[in-house]
Amino acid sequence: MAQVTNEDLKARLARVEGQIRGVSKMLDEGKYCIDVLDQITAARRALEKVALLVMSRHMNSCVKKAMAEGRGETLTDELVQSLDKFLR
Amino acid sequence: MAQVTNEDLKARLARVEGQIRGVSKMLDEGKYCIDVLDQITAARRALEKVALLVMSRHMNSCVKKAMAEGRGETLTDELVQSLDKFLR
Amino acid sequence: MAQVTNEDLKARLARVEGQIRGVSKMLDEGKYCIDVLDQITAARRALEKVALLVMSRHMNSCVKKAMAEGRGETLTDELVQSLDKFLR
Amino acid sequence: MAQVTNEDLKARLARVEGQIRGVSKMLDEGKYCIDVLDQITAARRALEKVALLVMSRHMNSCVKKAMAEGRGETLTDELVQSLDKFLR
Repeated sequence: MAQVTNEDLKARLARVEGQIRGVSKMLDEGKYCIDVLDQITAARRALEKVALLVMSRHMNSCVKKAMAEGRGETLTDELVQSLDKFLR
Repeated sequence: MAQVTNEDLKARLARVEGQIRGVSKMLDEGKYCIDVLDQITAARRALEKVALLVMSRHMNSCVKKAMAEGRGETLTDELVQSLDKFLR
Repeated sequence: MAQVTNEDLKARLARVEGQIRGVSKMLDEGKYCIDVLDQITAARRALEKVALLVMSRHMNSCVKKAMAEGRGETLTDELVQSLDKFLR
Repeated sequence: MAQVTNEDLKARLARVEGQIRGVSKMLDEGKYCIDVLDQITAARRALEKVALLVMSRHMNSCVKKAMAEGRGETLTDELVQSLDKFLR
């Protein structure tokens, strides 16, 4: 996987924002709750994808560098803690 | 829990949008990946809260009505399917 | 969806237990971490399916009954709180 | 975080198995659905903790080694893909 750029991440985030605005619009239009929920699910999924890309970039840059310098474990712990929050 | 209004849901969604714009800004400012991840986690969590509120409202309105009319099971199945997508 | 029976739920739980024992065995055999993770993912997914079935049954029995008796909102709140814990 | 041992992981998995057997027992005893759900949530959470520990160990061993040998990106991609499955 090629390193993801800030531009790519920001384009993805802009799309998530658009999806969330779409949810607001669906509420205004009185769309059916289940359709609203499914749209929230899509936005959430897209947001998780951004998180995974940030994580991947972090591992291939900061964590990699830290490992080369013998500080890998600290960054791994930090990442796992952040993941833990993400899962919950 | 009082029935949630569209206004409340939309205010929450606007805050999520703000959080996501905040993530973009953090990327622009070169903020540390872990801080970016934690901000994404916060936005995702806020979005899940909206989903739960929509679900709750759905149960107290559409599902309740359907149950009174003997069509409850169809709507329950539909909701569980939507939840299934949400979980995965 | 036909009402799920305790027997079905217990058979599913027994399979999850088997999957988890399988993870232990993979650790003993020194299997590759990613394969271990994927097996944990499968067990977790199967466990979530049980949760969804319990939720579905709950809605079609207790919640339905409560709604007919005008106590629907209390049970809906309770279910949403439990879902909230489940999500996080 | 000290490297987690297979023994620790297996002890955790054994506890998860116990929790899942507990869910079966609760079903047998006709326990209230919400209490069953909360117990499933606890088991799922404990299982996710095992996944995080496996991931952490993987990063501090296999991924670290691969990075030192210039094969880091392949393993990072692999881990992110596995995480992606885990999240969904």
